[in-house]
Amino acid sequence: MENRRKFLKLASATSLAGITGLAAASCDTRKTPEEVNINFNKTYRWKMTTTWPPNFPILGEACHYFADWVRRMSGGRMDITVYGGGELIPALEGFDAVRNGAVEMNHGAAYYWAGKIPSAQFFATVPFGLNAQEMSSWIQSGGGQELWKDVYAPFDLLPAIAGNTGVQMGEWFNKEINTIDDLKGLKMRIPGLGGKVFAKAGGTPVLQSGGEVYTNLERGVIDAAEWISPFYDYNMGFYQVAKYYYYPGWHEPGSVLEMLFNKSKFYELPEDLQEILKTGCHRMDHWLIAESNARNGAYLKKLREETATEFRSFPTEVLDGLKRAANDVLTELTQSDPQSKIVYESMMQFKSTIRPWMEVSEKVFYETM
Amino acid sequence: MENRRKFLKLASATSLAGITGLAAASCDTRKTPEEVNINFNKTYRWKMTTTWPPNFPILGEACHYFADWVRRMSGGRMDITVYGGGELIPALEGFDAVRNGAVEMNHGAAYYWAGKIPSAQFFATVPFGLNAQEMSSWIQSGGGQELWKDVYAPFDLLPAIAGNTGVQMGEWFNKEINTIDDLKGLKMRIPGLGGKVFAKAGGTPVLQSGGEVYTNLERGVIDAAEWISPFYDYNMGFYQVAKYYYYPGWHEPGSVLEMLFNKSKFYELPEDLQEILKTGCHRMDHWLIAESNARNGAYLKKLREETATEFRSFPTEVLDGLKRAANDVLTELTQSDPQSKIVYESMMQFKSTIRPWMEVSEKVFYETM
Repeated sequence: MENRRKFLKLASATSLAGITGLAAASCDTRKTPEEVNINFNKTYRWKMTTTWPPNFPILGEACHYFADWVRRMSGGRMDITVYGGGELIPALEGFDAVRNGAVEMNHGAAYYWAGKIPSAQFFATVPFGLNAQEMSSWIQSGGGQELWKDVYAPFDLLPAIAGNTGVQMGEWFNKEINTIDDLKGLKMRIPGLGGKVFAKAGGTPVLQSGGEVYTNLERGVIDAAEWISPFYDYNMGFYQVAKYYYYPGWHEPGSVLEMLFNKSKFYELPEDLQEILKTGCHRMDHWLIAESNARNGAYLKKLREETATEFRSFPTEVLDGLKRAANDVLTELTQSDPQSKIVYESMMQFKSTIRPWMEVSEKVFYETM
Repeated sequence: MENRRKFLKLASATSLAGITGLAAASCDTRKTPEEVNINFNKTYRWKMTTTWPPNFPILGEACHYFADWVRRMSGGRMDITVYGGGELIPALEGFDAVRNGAVEMNHGAAYYWAGKIPSAQFFATVPFGLNAQEMSSWIQSGGGQELWKDVYAPFDLLPAIAGNTGVQMGEWFNKEINTIDDLKGLKMRIPGLGGKVFAKAGGTPVLQSGGEVYTNLERGVIDAAEWISPFYDYNMGFYQVAKYYYYPGWHEPGSVLEMLFNKSKFYELPEDLQEILKTGCHRMDHWLIAESNARNGAYLKKLREETATEFRSFPTEVLDGLKRAANDVLTELTQSDPQSKIVYESMMQFKSTIRPWMEVSEKVFYETM
C-alpha cells in the first residue's frame, strides 16, 4: 500500500508531459491493420545521398546500416539506395537535391547549409557549445527538434538527429601553441564557425576537402588542420606530416549528424514507413556514437604506441582567448540573424539547466572513477 | 582524384569489420516483399511486463512509447500491452514470466536477475565501472551484446539494451561523511553489488522497495538511502527527510536498462517485426537518456533553489575506501563464478581502451568548456 501510494504520488507529482498525454496517444494508434489501411504490396524506392565519401567508415557505414534496417523493418517495401558524395551529386549539394525532390533524403550535418540558413549550424555544433549527450537532450527533450523543423519548413525539408561524432580532437599543428598569439598568422584547415573564431583570434582559416589536407600539411601550404578524431585521423595519416595533436576540439564539441527528408515525400508515405524511418534515425545515432567511441579508443592507443605523435592539451590561456573570440563571432551572428538568435538562446537556456547536472554526474564521474 | 585516393585509402586502411561485410549483408536483405513472404494480415498480441511501478515517469513512459512506436511501425500488426510492476505479476518476476512464456517481454535491468545468473549484473552496472556512453559502446561495439546473449541463452531469453539512467547520484545521508569510518554501522537502503560494497566498508545494507524509503528515513529506521537522480529523488520527497545529497553515484555509474524477450517467441516472428522490435529498443535508449538528462537538470535546479538540501561530493578518501571494497567484492565474485570472470574481463579490457579516449574528449570537455 505504502509502496503504491508513494509511486502514485510520484507519478502525479511530475509536472512534465508524460503519462496523461501518453495514454491518449496510445489509444489513438491502437488501430487494427485494416483500420490503418496500408497497402502492403506497394514498394517505395528512395535515394539517399550523403556528404561522406563512398565507403567512408562509420559515418558512411551507418547510412548503409540504416538502409538495411529500414528494408528489413518494412519487409522490403522501402528500398533505399545510398550514394556516397560525388556518386550521384557533389557531396555538399544534398540540401538542394532533397529540396527539389531529385532525391528523397540526405545524410550530412546541418552546418553544411549555413550559407542558405545561418541558424542551421546551431543544429550541428557550436564552438564551446554542447557535447553529444547535451545536444541529443536539447534536440529530443529541450525544444530543439521543434525549432529545427521550423527553420527548415520554408524549404520543404524535415530534419532528424541521426548520429554524433562526439567531442572532436583539436587541431594538428607543426608548432607548439603556448599562447593565443601563437595562433596569429597561422594557416589552418578549419571550416565553419570554428574557422570564423580562428580568424577572430588572428589566424587564417583555409577551406580544403579532407583529401587535400595531408599533402598541404606535408608541403607546408598549411600550418595546421582540424579533422575529426583518432580513428579517422590515424587513417588519414596525419601523424606522418604533423607533430602535435591538440585537444579538446573546442570548435566541435559534439557535432550532430543530420538526416534530411523531403518533407512532402515523407508525409506522402504510409504512417508505418514514416515511423520506421524516424526510428531508424534514432538507432543510427545510438550505434554511431557507440562505434565511434570504441574505434577512437582503439586508434588513440595506436597513435600513442605506434607513432611519434605528441599529445598536447590547449593551455587555459589559449582556450580563454578562443572563448572570447567565439563569443564575438556568436554575438555578431545572432545580432545579424533573428532566427539564429532564437535558436542560440534556446540552446543556451537549455545549457543553463543541463550543464550543472552534467557537472555533478559525468564530470565528477571522470574525475573520480 | 587526390581526394578520392585518400578516402579509398582510408576506407581500406580500416582493419575493422564494416564495409565489405556490410555490402554482402545489404545484398542479402535486398528482397522484394513477395520474396520476404510476410503475412501482412496476421496480428501479434504481446504482453510486456516491467519492473517499474504503474505510470512511473521516464522509465515507464519509455515502455509505453516503445509499444506505441512498434504499433505504428508495424501498421498495427504488433500490439504490445504494457503492464506496470504488480499489475500482472510482481515487479521482479519478469525473468521467470518471460522464460516460461507467460509474457513475451519484460523491461527492467539485468542486476535484478543476479540471484539466478550472477554474471547478469555486469550487463546493468558495476560500482566504479563504466558510464552510459561506455556501457553502450561496450555492448554494441565491444563484444558485450554477444556475451549477454550467451549468458541468457540457456534460459531461452534474448536481451537488448533499452535505456540507461546515466550516472546516478550517490546517497542521501542525515550525517556528513568525511572519512570511510563514518560509513561504519550505518544502515543504508542500497541493493545489489553496491550493497555488498557498502557492507565490505562496514555499513549495513538494507533491502527496501522505493516506496518504503521515505518513511524509514523519516523514522530513523535507516540512516541513508540511494535512489536514482534529482528528477526521481525530488518527486520521492527525500529532501524532506534527509539533509545531505552526495555525489557521484559510485555504486551505479551508468545503469543499463534491459529489454528481455522470450527467445523462441522472438524468432517465431516474421523478420520485419524482429527488426522493428530491435530498432525500437535502440530508439528507447536514445530517448530515455536524453529525457533523463533534461529532467535531471531541471530538478537539480529545483532541489537547489526550493529545498534546504545540502549537496556534498564524497571526499577522495571515502571514494578510495569504497574502491578498495569494490575490488574485494568483484574479486570474490569473479573467482567464484567463471562466467562472471569472463564477462568482467571483457568489460575491463574494453575500459582499458575506451577510457583514455573519454579522458581526452569528454573529461577535458567538462573541465575546460
